[in-house]
Amino acid sequence: MNGHVFGLGLGPGDPELITLRALKLLHAAPVVAYPAPEEGASFARSIVASWLSPAQIEIAIRMPMDSARFPAQAVYDRAAAEIAAHLVAGRDVAVLCQGDPFFYGSFMYLFGRLAERHSVEVVPGVSSLGAAAAAAHWPLAARADVLTVLPAMLDDAALERRLAETDAAAIIKLGRHLPRVRRLLDRLGLIERACYVERATLGTERVLPLAEARAESAPYFSLILLHRRGEAWR
Amino acid sequence: MNGHVFGLGLGPGDPELITLRALKLLHAAPVVAYPAPEEGASFARSIVASWLSPAQIEIAIRMPMDSARFPAQAVYDRAAAEIAAHLVAGRDVAVLCQGDPFFYGSFMYLFGRLAERHSVEVVPGVSSLGAAAAAAHWPLAARADVLTVLPAMLDDAALERRLAETDAAAIIKLGRHLPRVRRLLDRLGLIERACYVERATLGTERVLPLAEARAESAPYFSLILLHRRGEAWR
Repeated sequence: MNGHVFGLGLGPGDPELITLRALKLLHAAPVVAYPAPEEGASFARSIVASWLSPAQIEIAIRMPMDSARFPAQAVYDRAAAEIAAHLVAGRDVAVLCQGDPFFYGSFMYLFGRLAERHSVEVVPGVSSLGAAAAAAHWPLAARADVLTVLPAMLDDAALERRLAETDAAAIIKLGRHLPRVRRLLDRLGLIERACYVERATLGTERVLPLAEARAESAPYFSLILLHRRGEAWR
Repeated sequence: MNGHVFGLGLGPGDPELITLRALKLLHAAPVVAYPAPEEGASFARSIVASWLSPAQIEIAIRMPMDSARFPAQAVYDRAAAEIAAHLVAGRDVAVLCQGDPFFYGSFMYLFGRLAERHSVEVVPGVSSLGAAAAAAHWPLAARADVLTVLPAMLDDAALERRLAETDAAAIIKLGRHLPRVRRLLDRLGLIERACYVERATLGTERVLPLAEARAESAPYFSLILLHRRGEAWR
Protein backbone atom coordinates (compact mmCIF):
# COMPACT_ATOMS: atom_id res chain seq x y z
CA MET A 1 0.00 0.00 0.00
CA ASN A 2 1.37 3.39 -0.98
CA GLY A 3 2.25 6.04 1.57
CA HIS A 4 0.61 9.44 1.93
CA VAL A 5 2.07 12.92 1.67
CA PHE A 6 1.15 15.31 4.48
CA GLY A 7 1.84 18.98 3.82
CA LEU A 8 2.05 20.29 7.37
CA GLY A 9 1.49 23.97 8.03
CA LEU A 10 3.64 24.66 11.11
CA GLY A 11 2.71 28.30 11.64
CA PRO A 12 4.95 31.37 11.68
CA GLY A 13 7.75 30.18 13.94
CA ASP A 14 6.67 29.87 17.58
CA PRO A 15 6.51 26.08 18.13
CA GLU A 16 3.40 26.59 20.29
CA LEU A 17 1.52 27.75 17.18
CA ILE A 18 1.63 24.31 15.60
CA THR A 19 -1.75 22.56 15.47
CA LEU A 20 -2.59 19.31 17.24
CA ARG A 21 -3.13 17.68 13.85
CA ALA A 22 0.22 18.72 12.40
CA LEU A 23 2.01 17.50 15.51
CA LYS A 24 0.20 14.15 15.45
CA LEU A 25 1.01 13.57 11.78
CA LEU A 26 4.61 14.70 12.29
CA HIS A 27 5.09 12.18 15.10
CA ALA A 28 3.69 9.36 12.97
CA ALA A 29 5.67 10.04 9.79
CA PRO A 30 8.68 7.84 9.06
CA VAL A 31 10.02 10.40 6.56
CA VAL A 32 10.21 14.17 7.04
CA ALA A 33 11.06 16.59 4.20
CA TYR A 34 11.62 20.34 4.48
CA PRO A 35 12.90 23.33 2.52
CA ALA A 36 16.36 24.54 3.46
CA PRO A 37 18.86 27.09 2.23
CA GLU A 38 21.81 26.00 0.11
CA GLU A 39 23.87 25.78 3.30
CA GLY A 40 22.79 25.82 6.92
CA ALA A 41 19.67 25.15 8.93
CA SER A 42 16.07 24.90 7.75
CA PHE A 43 13.68 27.37 9.36
CA ALA A 44 10.71 24.99 8.99
CA ARG A 45 12.69 22.18 10.62
CA SER A 46 13.73 24.47 13.49
CA ILE A 47 10.08 25.03 14.44
CA VAL A 48 9.57 21.33 15.22
CA ALA A 49 13.16 20.28 15.99
CA SER A 50 12.34 19.26 19.57
CA TRP A 51 9.71 16.79 18.34
CA LEU A 52 11.78 15.00 15.69
CA SER A 53 13.11 11.52 16.37
CA PRO A 54 16.46 10.11 15.20
CA ALA A 55 14.47 7.24 13.71
CA GLN A 56 12.88 9.56 11.16
CA ILE A 57 14.46 9.79 7.71
CA GLU A 58 15.07 13.46 6.83
CA ILE A 59 15.09 15.01 3.36
CA ALA A 60 16.46 18.56 3.19
CA ILE A 61 15.24 20.25 0.00
CA ARG A 62 18.13 22.69 -0.48
CA MET A 63 17.43 25.69 -2.66
CA PRO A 64 20.29 27.34 -4.55
CA MET A 65 20.98 30.95 -3.53
CA ASP A 66 21.12 32.01 -7.18
CA SER A 67 17.77 33.75 -7.50
CA ALA A 68 17.92 33.65 -11.30
CA ARG A 69 17.22 29.95 -10.98
CA PHE A 70 14.09 30.47 -8.85
CA PRO A 71 11.68 28.61 -8.76
CA ALA A 72 14.35 26.01 -9.24
CA GLN A 73 12.28 23.49 -11.13
CA ALA A 74 15.07 20.94 -11.05
CA VAL A 75 15.32 21.04 -7.26
CA TYR A 76 11.59 20.40 -6.90
CA ASP A 77 11.65 17.70 -9.57
CA ARG A 78 14.39 15.86 -7.70
CA ALA A 79 12.73 16.30 -4.29
CA ALA A 80 9.40 15.08 -5.66
CA ALA A 81 11.09 11.99 -7.08
CA GLU A 82 12.81 11.26 -3.77
CA ILE A 83 9.52 11.66 -1.88
CA ALA A 84 7.66 9.53 -4.44
CA ALA A 85 10.15 6.69 -3.94
CA HIS A 86 9.30 6.60 -0.22
CA LEU A 87 5.55 6.68 -1.01
CA VAL A 88 5.84 3.76 -3.40
CA ALA A 89 7.74 1.87 -0.71
CA GLY A 90 4.75 2.42 1.60
CA ARG A 91 6.22 5.15 3.79
CA ASP A 92 4.27 8.31 4.63
CA VAL A 93 6.14 11.58 4.11
CA ALA A 94 5.50 14.72 6.18
CA VAL A 95 6.54 17.88 4.34
CA LEU A 96 7.24 20.73 6.77
CA CYS A 97 5.89 24.12 5.74
CA GLN A 98 6.40 27.34 7.66
CA GLY A 99 3.17 29.31 7.93
CA ASP A 100 0.30 27.96 5.83
CA PRO A 101 1.23 25.56 3.00
CA PHE A 102 -0.93 27.25 0.36
CA PHE A 103 -0.37 30.91 1.33
CA TYR A 104 2.67 31.78 -0.83
CA GLY A 105 4.36 28.59 0.37
CA SER A 106 6.88 26.51 -1.54
CA PHE A 107 4.89 23.35 -0.75
CA MET A 108 2.67 24.06 -3.73
CA TYR A 109 5.56 23.18 -6.06
CA LEU A 110 5.80 19.70 -4.55
CA PHE A 111 2.01 19.47 -4.49
CA GLY A 112 1.91 20.20 -8.23
CA ARG A 113 4.33 17.35 -8.84
CA LEU A 114 2.83 14.75 -6.48
CA ALA A 115 -0.92 15.24 -6.14
CA GLU A 116 -1.97 13.58 -9.37
CA ARG A 117 -0.38 10.23 -8.63
CA HIS A 118 -0.24 10.16 -4.85
CA SER A 119 -2.49 10.74 -1.85
CA VAL A 120 -1.83 14.23 -0.49
CA GLU A 121 -3.38 15.81 2.60
CA VAL A 122 -2.75 19.49 3.26
CA VAL A 123 -2.93 20.57 6.90
CA PRO A 124 -3.52 24.32 7.08
CA GLY A 125 -1.45 26.36 9.50
CA VAL A 126 -1.36 29.78 11.11
CA SER A 127 -0.20 32.20 8.40
CA SER A 128 2.36 34.96 8.78
CA LEU A 129 -0.49 37.36 8.11
CA GLY A 130 -2.57 36.32 11.13
CA ALA A 131 0.55 36.12 13.27
CA ALA A 132 1.69 39.63 12.33
CA ALA A 133 -1.78 41.05 12.95
CA ALA A 134 -1.89 39.42 16.40
CA ALA A 135 1.60 40.66 17.29
CA ALA A 136 0.81 44.20 16.18
CA HIS A 137 -2.64 44.32 17.78
CA TRP A 138 -3.85 45.17 14.29
CA PRO A 139 -7.20 43.72 13.16
CA LEU A 140 -6.81 42.95 9.46
CA ALA A 141 -10.31 43.50 8.13
CA ALA A 142 -13.92 43.60 9.25
CA ARG A 143 -17.41 43.43 7.77
CA ALA A 144 -17.37 44.52 4.09
CA ASP A 145 -13.66 45.45 4.01
CA VAL A 146 -11.63 44.39 1.00
CA LEU A 147 -8.25 42.98 2.10
CA THR A 148 -5.45 42.76 -0.47
CA VAL A 149 -2.18 40.87 -0.11
CA LEU A 150 0.55 42.51 -2.18
CA PRO A 151 4.04 41.09 -2.75
CA ALA A 152 6.55 43.93 -2.32
CA MET A 153 8.42 43.12 -5.52
CA LEU A 154 5.56 44.63 -7.55
CA ASP A 155 6.55 48.01 -8.96
CA ASP A 156 5.22 51.27 -7.53
CA ALA A 157 2.54 51.70 -10.20
CA ALA A 158 1.21 48.18 -9.63
CA LEU A 159 1.17 48.64 -5.86
CA GLU A 160 -0.48 52.07 -6.10
CA ARG A 161 -3.24 50.78 -8.38
CA ARG A 162 -4.15 47.99 -5.93
CA LEU A 163 -3.87 50.18 -2.86
CA ALA A 164 -6.36 52.62 -4.38
CA GLU A 165 -8.96 49.84 -4.57
CA THR A 166 -8.67 48.23 -1.16
CA ASP A 167 -9.67 48.97 2.42
CA ALA A 168 -6.84 47.06 4.04
CA ALA A 169 -3.61 45.59 2.78
CA ALA A 170 -0.65 43.45 3.74
CA ILE A 171 2.57 44.04 1.81
CA ILE A 172 4.63 40.88 2.13
CA LYS A 173 8.14 39.68 1.18
CA LEU A 174 9.63 43.09 1.94
CA GLY A 175 13.36 42.35 2.00
CA ARG A 176 15.29 44.99 0.06
CA HIS A 177 12.02 46.57 -1.13
CA LEU A 178 11.30 48.12 2.28
CA PRO A 179 12.72 51.63 1.60
CA ARG A 180 10.95 51.92 -1.74
CA VAL A 181 7.62 50.72 -0.37
CA ARG A 182 7.94 53.05 2.62
CA ARG A 183 8.56 56.01 0.27
CA LEU A 184 5.55 55.01 -1.84
CA LEU A 185 3.23 54.84 1.17
CA ASP A 186 4.57 58.18 2.38
CA ARG A 187 3.82 59.76 -0.99
CA LEU A 188 0.31 58.23 -0.98
CA GLY A 189 -0.38 59.68 2.48
CA LEU A 190 -0.72 56.18 3.95
CA ILE A 191 2.42 55.93 6.08
CA GLU A 192 0.62 56.97 9.27
CA ARG A 193 -1.92 54.19 8.69
CA ALA A 194 0.68 51.46 8.38
CA CYS A 195 2.73 49.33 10.71
CA TYR A 196 5.78 47.17 10.17
CA VAL A 197 6.14 43.69 11.67
CA GLU A 198 9.34 41.67 11.57
CA ARG A 199 9.70 37.99 12.51
CA ALA A 200 6.28 37.73 14.17
CA THR A 201 6.12 35.24 17.10
CA LEU A 202 9.91 34.70 17.18
CA GLY A 203 12.14 35.93 20.01
CA THR A 204 13.45 38.62 17.66
CA GLU A 205 9.96 39.91 16.80
CA ARG A 206 9.68 43.68 16.20
CA VAL A 207 6.58 45.81 15.70
CA LEU A 208 6.99 49.45 14.68
CA PRO A 209 4.97 52.24 13.12
CA LEU A 210 6.09 52.11 9.47
CA ALA A 211 7.40 55.66 9.69
CA GLU A 212 9.97 54.41 12.21
CA ALA A 213 11.10 51.40 10.16
CA ARG A 214 14.08 53.13 8.58
CA ALA A 215 16.30 50.13 7.77
CA GLU A 216 17.60 49.81 4.21
CA SER A 217 16.35 46.25 4.03
CA ALA A 218 14.08 43.98 5.98
CA PRO A 219 14.20 40.25 6.68
CA TYR A 220 12.18 38.05 4.36
CA PHE A 221 9.86 37.39 7.32
CA SER A 222 8.56 40.92 7.55
CA LEU A 223 5.49 42.68 6.30
CA ILE A 224 3.56 45.92 6.37
CA LEU A 225 -0.07 46.08 7.47
CA LEU A 226 -2.24 49.04 6.59
CA HIS A 227 -5.80 50.32 6.79
CA ARG A 228 -6.81 53.00 4.33
CA ARG A 229 -9.77 54.18 6.38
CA GLY A 230 -8.48 53.98 9.92
CA GLU A 231 -9.81 51.50 12.40
CA ALA A 232 -12.77 49.87 10.71
CA TRP A 233 -13.75 47.81 13.73
CA ARG A 234 -14.56 50.64 16.14
CA MET B 1 -3.14 42.01 40.08
CA ASN B 2 -5.41 42.33 37.09
CA GLY B 3 -6.22 39.42 34.81
CA HIS B 4 -5.36 39.14 31.13
CA VAL B 5 -7.58 38.73 28.09
CA PHE B 6 -6.57 36.00 25.65
CA GLY B 7 -8.21 36.16 22.23
CA LEU B 8 -7.85 32.54 21.14
CA GLY B 9 -7.99 31.69 17.45
CA LEU B 10 -9.44 28.17 17.40
CA GLY B 11 -9.25 27.52 13.66
CA PRO B 12 -12.04 26.68 11.22
CA GLY B 13 -13.89 23.97 13.14
CA ASP B 14 -11.92 20.72 13.32
CA PRO B 15 -10.78 20.55 16.97
CA GLU B 16 -7.42 19.12 15.80
CA LEU B 17 -6.68 22.45 14.12
CA ILE B 18 -6.39 24.28 17.43
CA THR B 19 -2.83 25.33 18.31
CA LEU B 20 -0.89 24.10 21.32
CA ARG B 21 -0.81 27.66 22.66
CA ALA B 22 -4.55 28.21 22.41
CA LEU B 23 -5.22 24.90 24.13
CA LYS B 24 -2.79 25.67 26.95
CA LEU B 25 -4.30 29.11 27.57
CA LEU B 26 -7.83 27.70 27.35
CA HIS B 27 -7.05 25.10 30.02
CA ALA B 28 -5.60 27.73 32.34
CA ALA B 29 -8.38 30.31 32.04
CA PRO B 30 -10.91 30.53 34.89
CA VAL B 31 -13.35 32.43 32.62
CA VAL B 32 -14.27 31.58 29.02
CA ALA B 33 -16.29 33.93 26.79
CA TYR B 34 -17.59 33.19 23.29
CA PRO B 35 -19.94 34.53 20.63
CA ALA B 36 -23.26 32.72 20.32
CA PRO B 37 -26.49 33.12 18.40
CA GLU B 38 -29.53 34.61 20.08
CA GLU B 39 -30.66 31.08 20.91
CA GLY B 40 -28.78 27.81 20.74
CA ALA B 41 -25.20 26.62 20.71
CA SER B 42 -22.03 28.60 20.04
CA PHE B 43 -19.95 27.35 17.12
CA ALA B 44 -16.70 28.60 18.70
CA ARG B 45 -17.54 26.82 21.97
CA SER B 46 -18.35 23.59 20.10
CA ILE B 47 -14.80 23.44 18.72
CA VAL B 48 -13.31 23.13 22.21
CA ALA B 49 -16.28 21.68 24.12
CA SER B 50 -14.41 18.49 25.04
CA TRP B 51 -11.67 20.50 26.78
CA LEU B 52 -13.87 22.77 28.90
CA SER B 53 -14.18 22.12 32.61
CA PRO B 54 -17.30 22.61 34.76
CA ALA B 55 -15.13 24.78 37.03
CA GLN B 56 -14.76 27.40 34.29
CA ILE B 57 -17.13 30.38 34.32
CA GLU B 58 -18.75 30.76 30.89
CA ILE B 59 -19.94 33.98 29.26
CA ALA B 60 -22.07 33.51 26.14
CA ILE B 61 -22.07 36.72 24.09
CA ARG B 62 -25.45 36.32 22.43
CA MET B 63 -25.99 38.33 19.25
CA PRO B 64 -29.53 39.37 18.29
CA MET B 65 -30.77 37.92 14.99
CA ASP B 66 -32.03 41.34 13.91
CA SER B 67 -29.34 42.23 11.39
CA ALA B 68 -30.36 45.89 11.39
CA ARG B 69 -28.76 46.07 14.82
CA PHE B 70 -25.41 44.68 13.61
CA PRO B 71 -22.68 45.27 14.82
CA ALA B 72 -24.72 45.35 17.96
CA GLN B 73 -22.66 47.90 19.85
CA ALA B 74 -24.71 47.43 23.00
CA VAL B 75 -24.06 43.69 23.09
CA TYR B 76 -20.30 44.21 22.83
CA ASP B 77 -20.39 47.05 25.37
CA ARG B 78 -22.13 44.79 27.89
CA ALA B 79 -19.83 41.82 27.17
CA ALA B 80 -16.73 43.99 27.51
CA ALA B 81 -17.99 45.28 30.86
CA GLU B 82 -18.66 41.75 32.09
CA ILE B 83 -15.19 40.61 30.99
CA ALA B 84 -13.56 43.70 32.53
CA ALA B 85 -15.16 42.92 35.89
CA HIS B 86 -13.44 39.51 35.89
CA LEU B 87 -10.11 41.10 34.90
CA VAL B 88 -10.30 43.63 37.71
CA ALA B 89 -11.02 40.76 40.11
CA GLY B 90 -7.75 39.15 38.94
CA ARG B 91 -9.25 36.46 36.71
CA ASP B 92 -7.91 35.79 33.19
CA VAL B 93 -10.54 35.58 30.46
CA ALA B 94 -10.16 33.43 27.33
CA VAL B 95 -12.28 34.69 24.44
CA LEU B 96 -12.99 31.92 21.93
CA CYS B 97 -12.72 32.90 18.28
CA GLN B 98 -13.48 30.64 15.34
CA GLY B 99 -10.78 30.93 12.67
CA ASP B 100 -8.29 33.72 13.23
CA PRO B 101 -9.31 36.47 15.68
CA PHE B 102 -8.28 39.37 13.43
CA PHE B 103 -9.41 37.98 10.06
CA TYR B 104 -12.99 39.31 9.85
CA GLY B 105 -13.59 38.06 13.39
CA SER B 106 -15.94 39.54 15.96
CA PHE B 107 -13.16 39.48 18.58
CA MET B 108 -11.94 42.83 17.25
CA TYR B 109 -15.02 44.51 18.71
CA LEU B 110 -14.11 43.31 22.20
CA PHE B 111 -10.47 44.12 21.51
CA GLY B 112 -11.41 47.71 20.65
CA ARG B 113 -13.22 48.02 23.98
CA LEU B 114 -10.66 46.30 26.22
CA ALA B 115 -7.14 46.78 24.85
CA GLU B 116 -6.55 50.31 26.09
CA ARG B 117 -7.11 49.53 29.74
CA HIS B 118 -6.34 45.83 30.00
CA SER B 119 -3.63 43.37 28.99
CA VAL B 120 -4.71 41.58 25.80
CA GLU B 121 -2.85 38.79 24.01
CA VAL B 122 -4.12 37.68 20.62
CA VAL B 123 -3.32 34.08 19.66
CA PRO B 124 -3.55 33.71 15.88
CA GLY B 125 -5.41 30.70 14.48
CA VAL B 126 -5.87 28.81 11.24
CA SER B 127 -8.15 30.97 9.08
CA SER B 128 -11.10 29.76 7.04
CA LEU B 129 -9.10 30.83 3.98
CA GLY B 130 -6.18 28.48 4.61
CA ALA B 131 -8.57 25.71 5.62
CA ALA B 132 -10.66 26.04 2.46
CA ALA B 133 -7.55 26.09 0.27
CA ALA B 134 -6.26 22.93 1.96
CA ALA B 135 -9.61 21.17 1.61
CA ALA B 136 -9.95 22.09 -2.06
CA HIS B 137 -6.32 21.30 -2.94
CA TRP B 138 -6.19 24.87 -4.18
CA PRO B 139 -2.99 26.87 -3.61
CA LEU B 140 -4.08 30.44 -2.90
CA ALA B 141 -1.22 32.46 -4.31
CA ALA B 142 2.45 32.18 -5.23
CA ARG B 143 5.43 34.42 -5.93
CA ALA B 144 4.27 37.87 -7.15
CA ASP B 145 0.54 37.03 -7.15
CA VAL B 146 -1.87 39.60 -5.74
CA LEU B 147 -4.48 37.90 -3.53
CA THR B 148 -7.69 39.78 -2.74
CA VAL B 149 -10.27 38.88 -0.11
CA LEU B 150 -13.71 40.12 -1.12
CA PRO B 151 -16.83 40.02 1.07
CA ALA B 152 -19.72 38.79 -1.07
CA MET B 153 -22.06 41.54 0.07
CA LEU B 154 -20.20 44.02 -2.18
CA ASP B 155 -22.23 44.86 -5.27
CA ASP B 156 -21.36 43.48 -8.71
CA ALA B 157 -19.55 46.62 -9.86
CA ALA B 158 -17.37 46.69 -6.74
CA LEU B 159 -16.54 43.00 -7.06
CA GLU B 160 -15.82 43.29 -10.80
CA ARG B 161 -13.44 46.24 -10.28
CA ARG B 162 -11.38 44.32 -7.70
CA LEU B 163 -11.41 41.06 -9.65
CA ALA B 164 -9.96 42.89 -12.68
CA GLU B 165 -6.92 43.91 -10.60
CA THR B 166 -6.03 40.67 -8.85
CA ASP B 167 -4.40 37.36 -9.69
CA ALA B 168 -6.26 35.33 -7.09
CA ALA B 169 -9.28 35.96 -4.93
CA ALA B 170 -11.37 34.57 -2.12
CA ILE B 171 -14.99 35.66 -1.98
CA ILE B 172 -16.15 35.18 1.59
CA LYS B 173 -19.42 35.42 3.58
CA LEU B 174 -21.41 34.04 0.64
CA GLY B 175 -24.76 33.23 2.25
CA ARG B 176 -27.65 34.42 0.08
CA HIS B 177 -25.20 36.17 -2.28
CA LEU B 178 -24.05 32.88 -3.84
CA PRO B 179 -26.34 32.89 -6.94
CA ARG B 180 -25.53 36.52 -7.75
CA VAL B 181 -21.77 36.03 -7.34
CA ARG B 182 -21.90 32.86 -9.42
CA ARG B 183 -23.71 34.74 -12.22
CA LEU B 184 -21.16 37.53 -12.04
CA LEU B 185 -18.20 35.14 -12.32
CA ASP B 186 -19.93 33.38 -15.21
CA ARG B 187 -20.37 36.69 -17.05
CA LEU B 188 -16.71 37.58 -16.41
CA GLY B 189 -15.55 34.26 -17.84
CA LEU B 190 -14.10 33.20 -14.49
CA ILE B 191 -16.51 30.47 -13.42
CA GLU B 192 -14.27 27.68 -14.74
CA ARG B 193 -11.39 29.07 -12.66
CA ALA B 194 -13.32 29.05 -9.40
CA CYS B 195 -14.22 26.50 -6.76
CA TYR B 196 -16.74 26.54 -3.95
CA VAL B 197 -15.93 25.32 -0.44
CA GLU B 198 -18.55 24.88 2.28
CA ARG B 199 -17.81 24.23 5.99
CA ALA B 200 -14.13 23.40 5.47
CA THR B 201 -12.73 20.83 7.95
CA LEU B 202 -16.16 19.95 9.39
CA GLY B 203 -17.85 16.59 8.84
CA THR B 204 -20.26 18.33 6.46
CA GLU B 205 -17.47 19.84 4.32
CA ARG B 206 -18.20 20.13 0.59
CA VAL B 207 -15.87 21.12 -2.25
CA LEU B 208 -17.33 21.68 -5.73
CA PRO B 209 -16.41 23.40 -8.98
CA LEU B 210 -18.31 26.70 -8.70
CA ALA B 211 -20.28 25.88 -11.85
CA GLU B 212 -21.84 22.96 -9.92
CA ALA B 213 -22.71 24.97 -6.78
CA ARG B 214 -26.29 25.68 -7.79
CA ALA B 215 -27.91 26.24 -4.40
CA GLU B 216 -29.91 29.43 -3.89
CA SER B 217 -27.98 30.22 -0.76
CA ALA B 218 -24.84 29.04 0.99
CA PRO B 219 -23.98 28.68 4.66
CA TYR B 220 -22.12 31.58 6.25
CA PHE B 221 -19.08 29.30 6.42
CA SER B 222 -18.58 29.03 2.69
CA LEU B 223 -16.38 30.77 0.18
CA ILE B 224 -15.27 30.85 -3.42
CA LEU B 225 -11.61 30.57 -4.40
CA LEU B 226 -10.43 31.65 -7.82
CA HIS B 227 -7.31 32.13 -9.91
CA ARG B 228 -7.55 34.50 -12.85
CA ARG B 229 -4.51 33.09 -14.63
CA GLY B 230 -4.82 29.38 -13.99
CA GLU B 231 -2.43 27.50 -11.80
CA ALA B 232 0.33 29.94 -10.95
CA TRP B 233 2.42 27.41 -9.09
CA ARG B 234 3.13 24.99 -11.93
